[in-house]
Amino acid sequence: MKNKSGFSLGIILFLFFICSGQNENQAASENNSETTSSQAHPKLILTAQGVKDIRAQLGNIPIFDKTLEKVKAEVDAEIAKGIDTPIPEDYSGGYTHERHKRNFLILQKAGVLYQILDDEKYARYVKDALMQYEALYKTLPVHPKTRSYARGKLFWQSLNDSNWLVYVSQAYDCIYNYLSKEERNKLETNLFRPFADYISIENPQFYNRVHNHSTWGNAAVGMIGLVMNDEELIQRALYGIKDVDLDKTTKDDDGGYINKDGKAGFLANIEEPFSPDGYYTEGPYYQRYAMYPFLIFAQGLQNIKPELKIFEYKDGVLLKAVDVLLNLTDADGEFFPLNDAQKGMSYFSRELVTAVDIAYHNANQVTGLLSIAKQQDQVLLDDSGFSVALGIKNGKEKPFDKKSINLLDGSNGTQGGVAILRKDDLELVFKYTAQGSSHGHYDKLSFSFYEKGDEVIQDYGLARFVNIEQKGGGNYLKENTTWAKQSIAHNTIIQNETSHFNGEYEKGSTHHSELFVFDASNGNVQIVSAKEKNAYPGTELQRTMVMIKEDNFEKPFVLDIMKVTSNKQNQYDFPFYFMGQPIETNFKYDSPTPMKILGTNNGYQHLWVEGISKADTDNTKFTWLNSGSFYTITTVTNPLDDLFFTRLGANDPKFNLRRDTALMIRRKNSQNTTFVSVIEPHGSYSPVSELAINAVSHISKLKVAYDSTDYTAVSMENDLGNTNIFILCNTNSSKTKEHQLNINGKEYLWKGAYYYSNINK
Amino acid sequence: MKNKSGFSLGIILFLFFICSGQNENQAASENNSETTSSQAHPKLILTAQGVKDIRAQLGNIPIFDKTLEKVKAEVDAEIAKGIDTPIPEDYSGGYTHERHKRNFLILQKAGVLYQILDDEKYARYVKDALMQYEALYKTLPVHPKTRSYARGKLFWQSLNDSNWLVYVSQAYDCIYNYLSKEERNKLETNLFRPFADYISIENPQFYNRVHNHSTWGNAAVGMIGLVMNDEELIQRALYGIKDVDLDKTTKDDDGGYINKDGKAGFLANIEEPFSPDGYYTEGPYYQRYAMYPFLIFAQGLQNIKPELKIFEYKDGVLLKAVDVLLNLTDADGEFFPLNDAQKGMSYFSRELVTAVDIAYHNANQVTGLLSIAKQQDQVLLDDSGFSVALGIKNGKEKPFDKKSINLLDGSNGTQGGVAILRKDDLELVFKYTAQGSSHGHYDKLSFSFYEKGDEVIQDYGLARFVNIEQKGGGNYLKENTTWAKQSIAHNTIIQNETSHFNGEYEKGSTHHSELFVFDASNGNVQIVSAKEKNAYPGTELQRTMVMIKEDNFEKPFVLDIMKVTSNKQNQYDFPFYFMGQPIETNFKYDSPTPMKILGTNNGYQHLWVEGISKADTDNTKFTWLNSGSFYTITTVTNPLDDLFFTRLGANDPKFNLRRDTALMIRRKNSQNTTFVSVIEPHGSYSPVSELAINAVSHISKLKVAYDSTDYTAVSMENDLGNTNIFILCNTNSSKTKEHQLNINGKEYLWKGAYYYSNINK
Repeated sequence: MKNKSGFSLGIILFLFFICSGQNENQAASENNSETTSSQAHPKLILTAQGVKDIRAQLGNIPIFDKTLEKVKAEVDAEIAKGIDTPIPEDYSGGYTHERHKRNFLILQKAGVLYQILDDEKYARYVKDALMQYEALYKTLPVHPKTRSYARGKLFWQSLNDSNWLVYVSQAYDCIYNYLSKEERNKLETNLFRPFADYISIENPQFYNRVHNHSTWGNAAVGMIGLVMNDEELIQRALYGIKDVDLDKTTKDDDGGYINKDGKAGFLANIEEPFSPDGYYTEGPYYQRYAMYPFLIFAQGLQNIKPELKIFEYKDGVLLKAVDVLLNLTDADGEFFPLNDAQKGMSYFSRELVTAVDIAYHNANQVTGLLSIAKQQDQVLLDDSGFSVALGIKNGKEKPFDKKSINLLDGSNGTQGGVAILRKDDLELVFKYTAQGSSHGHYDKLSFSFYEKGDEVIQDYGLARFVNIEQKGGGNYLKENTTWAKQSIAHNTIIQNETSHFNGEYEKGSTHHSELFVFDASNGNVQIVSAKEKNAYPGTELQRTMVMIKEDNFEKPFVLDIMKVTSNKQNQYDFPFYFMGQPIETNFKYDSPTPMKILGTNNGYQHLWVEGISKADTDNTKFTWLNSGSFYTITTVTNPLDDLFFTRLGANDPKFNLRRDTALMIRRKNSQNTTFVSVIEPHGSYSPVSELAINAVSHISKLKVAYDSTDYTAVSMENDLGNTNIFILCNTNSSKTKEHQLNINGKEYLWKGAYYYSNINK
Repeated sequence: MKNKSGFSLGIILFLFFICSGQNENQAASENNSETTSSQAHPKLILTAQGVKDIRAQLGNIPIFDKTLEKVKAEVDAEIAKGIDTPIPEDYSGGYTHERHKRNFLILQKAGVLYQILDDEKYARYVKDALMQYEALYKTLPVHPKTRSYARGKLFWQSLNDSNWLVYVSQAYDCIYNYLSKEERNKLETNLFRPFADYISIENPQFYNRVHNHSTWGNAAVGMIGLVMNDEELIQRALYGIKDVDLDKTTKDDDGGYINKDGKAGFLANIEEPFSPDGYYTEGPYYQRYAMYPFLIFAQGLQNIKPELKIFEYKDGVLLKAVDVLLNLTDADGEFFPLNDAQKGMSYFSRELVTAVDIAYHNANQVTGLLSIAKQQDQVLLDDSGFSVALGIKNGKEKPFDKKSINLLDGSNGTQGGVAILRKDDLELVFKYTAQGSSHGHYDKLSFSFYEKGDEVIQDYGLARFVNIEQKGGGNYLKENTTWAKQSIAHNTIIQNETSHFNGEYEKGSTHHSELFVFDASNGNVQIVSAKEKNAYPGTELQRTMVMIKEDNFEKPFVLDIMKVTSNKQNQYDFPFYFMGQPIETNFKYDSPTPMKILGTNNGYQHLWVEGISKADTDNTKFTWLNSGSFYTITTVTNPLDDLFFTRLGANDPKFNLRRDTALMIRRKNSQNTTFVSVIEPHGSYSPVSELAINAVSHISKLKVAYDSTDYTAVSMENDLGNTNIFILCNTNSSKTKEHQLNINGKEYLWKGAYYYSNINK
């Protein structure tokens, strides 16, 4: 472990505390809660003790003070504008949606300001707004927009109504003691209780399931329950609605099953989608979204019901999940866009501010988190944000060290996973997960590749402009299904122009890829390999990706071996969605005019053919330039292979898709075959210095030296004439197993899943 | 003038000094030069006095110390590698080219290090390298690559040979006294003098002209002449080769005339291409390139021949030109890519470090320059860089204030110009220049538009990957002619699918557009208008662009009026090369499959048709999203207008072009017509907050209210129902002229070129 103050160590320490007793923070909050839980407010997130501590330090905790000032300016501006609670009308992006959304965000902040600044105007503002909502809510029918499987009242989805209650319950807690008993009674009877019942009892198809939607619902019901001291709501939050019988075959708007196995409630929502490693099956974009209700409700439970030990639940998975989320970001802090994911979402989001602060506050103050908090440059205005601000002020910050990591998927960690290989400025993301719920994509054994936070070979992400009303109300676009989810939209193999599992959710959901080996213990040869046997029945896929650092190469490169074994002849397509400007190919290609479309279905209908060629040498090479660096793919081809340059955007009459490009290898009438490639970053170019440095690939010959059921060997000759050989055992990944293999008259002897060395050694 | 310490004021002060006597620096350097000019070295750029001053302050001038450390590390690394002076073979990008280029850059630095650090190893290195060059040069034939109209010996162009001598003469000056007389004699006789003669006397077609090439040649010859105290070379540098008779009709590689009017020499090169404003006719990318020899030779002349008063030549145009260059950058410091220009080139280039330092040193230390130097984070390791480092250290830095500016083109300032309108974060660049020499594009009355340094509506720039050998040796690509120079590659009008002046350089070079009015005195209504009568004989174009800041609009918007008057019916194409993701149109369009090409010639052969439509309303609207901001074009159309979405990249079999996009209006069978549009930036979107704010245009109706020979009026109604009217006098731009006009029964009375007000006022 390189950085002794990294989070993983922190987790260990945290678990140690769990075993050896409670740390001081926990003990303190328990003492508080025992004396105050039913009367003293605030108690949910901000606590009475926290308020006292914060007030004592105000002006001396820079990052907290700065956030406070910003929030105060924001809330003051809203107060000056007056309260507006319009009759609900719109989808997201529309006025009434955005207004109610802004209201709940501001109300939560105003409540906090009342407590910290002790200024009654904020309490009055919250009270007035709540009273307006009380008057409005009791008149409201179901929201007029009909697109959702679970319509809300304030918003078109119960999901957004739940968002509202998660935030507003915090506001209510902050002004609880400011209100008279009658006022509280009025709000609880006419607004909060009916609101909680509506999103739960009246919408069990939304509430009683394992899904990020219901996590929000559970948290909403539970948090208002905690504030109101309503044990029925708290139990409903933790364990779901009892005795509800849902049709197990119905689906939601995204095509996901409503509730296939009958599980429900907050604890089930922790149990199911998180793997023991803390990976959330839908991927980091939705994990980020889901983390807020998980963590904020957990913090509330920890403050008011510490006996539940919620942060220890499932081996401390909620706090592990924060570590995982941070590890699932590139060098700029942006999440790898696995499955449905909007690119650009990052750990600068408000959900991650929450996650980092709560993790720091509850996970024995792991100092690596402080460097992320410092980048975020804001904290929560509560006990946890105060802890972070104090930590930063006291100089406890350490770098958050992102390492190569393998994250297992599935509630028991047995359903594939995601591996990230990191070396120098490079990051390779390799996906061999389960389907990932309704937001999953059909991209078994796919990868994406980054340098310094820039995409080099990209994953498309989702086809949606979240909250931009002009684009289908800001919701998922049909191109998300026709393109983004399809296999051809990803850097993986596509057999016979059909997506994995034929693009069928039910099939995809019953399978996952299987890890063969992950080994990052040698920083110069890091390997991940996984197998997929179900994406195409009768065809077995094994992909192995190795990040290699060689002395003769300026930067690490990636060796990519996709071994295909089938019971019949197929057509295999193998695309690389490179980002940037093509610089050079070692093959001649035609650019057909007029421009035609690659195919008719499964995403192929969206691809223009910009260039077409036959591979006329053993090694096909392609160099491009992106963000000041050169990259070359060298791939083993045969004269029957077709090469395509594709451009996205066909059959896209609303410009919903980006005009991204790919180089694709097509191998027709093949049964067993192995795609072997090296992805090689090299050199640099600056339009300011106009210097092109190391602009040419150093791989002079790439060759499949041996390929059998048991072993695949690849030799790589560089431009100095040195040849290295990589041998993978395809059938036994044991570290202790000894192997012996003769290749071209030379005997190789080694132990473990792979061999890598200079051929003359 | 907003910022009293801005550069423009500095220029005035500088001129004042010129009139009232010399400043102290100048007096000091003259005193030095009188006692030292013929013997004491260094004297050319770094001076003996400068060395003394720098050594006294070393360790106390942070930015200088930092640069020194970096340069030392760089040179030490090169010294460790050893000297290589290979036999010349390659074009730019190739090894021998890049090696010799690196050599001259390192030699200049090593010379400086010898002086500043007083460490003999640097002198020895320079001496050894020069002796190797001496041995090599005398054996060299003309460079084997034949593409240039003036081949060099070390490089494929005499231009690059000149670069070499400009740098190496500085290195030689620095070790002059380290060498024995015999050694100097050997170098001067076998290397420097023949080298200077080769690039001048033996290549008069390169040397004896007015062009950035010959400026390098003149500087090279002059600088080595100054070091060697060779008056013949100095005279040849200043005034050109006497009695050379060049064919006035021959052209260079870029299609430019070699020497149409017989002018030559450094002074002529200052005289001709710079306008009195300091604008360089080829545009800022080449001005940047040219500035280095202009300024470095001028600094040498100022140090050794101060009686020439070179920085006062042509009213101080060399220093004005630095101010102009900085004003021709966007918010990120990148040059507006007028004519042939590689995007991304910026004031962070080494040429601009030179320009800023020399300007500060010689222009009475204008403090606005220090903020640029501070951003550059490096200085020249000479007297001027020392001045800058001291200025920064002493806290003299003031912001460099970029304002709206009109820069006249032509050696007398009578050949059109470039106007930049700036307001808040927006910059509009309007081009109505002369042809701009051989690097000029055929884009009369074109524009580009920026927000916060991001291109919103772009100018394509050049089609070249400078110094990337795989792309045609790093030289101009044929697509530069077939696409980048053509009118259709720009945001201007194209008549009958032919470029301005039929794309003929001779015709283009004899004409320029004419300014009608420029007035930025009212920050809320800034206007530029120009006419073009020669691009299409028989057709007169007047384009007026107004940057308007209105209370009801979040950001300023641009009103664009292109008035076309012709003696016959034509087809007019009017493209907007927007950057970003289309969000919404108010018209339906088809996306033809397969995809066809827009035309066959003049750049049209490079455009795919991605979308096609008829304008079916009075106002065509199109909204897009770029870098977190929304933009809407609202343009007045009629039902006969065709609308196209075009995508660049057809007939581009080497991927030499970017896949950029445009919305284009086509108006067929029209004689006189007026294109009226509003380009409206609005709102924001963040993928982190996922908030879409102010995502919809506020222009509800745009109308040509009146259009005659004398007046054009446009009414703009916003979504609050308020209507403003803009009236332009097309024929009289006098500020004092009074106008009266009745539009729809309402009488308008005003004075000056335009009227703008609410219609109800």
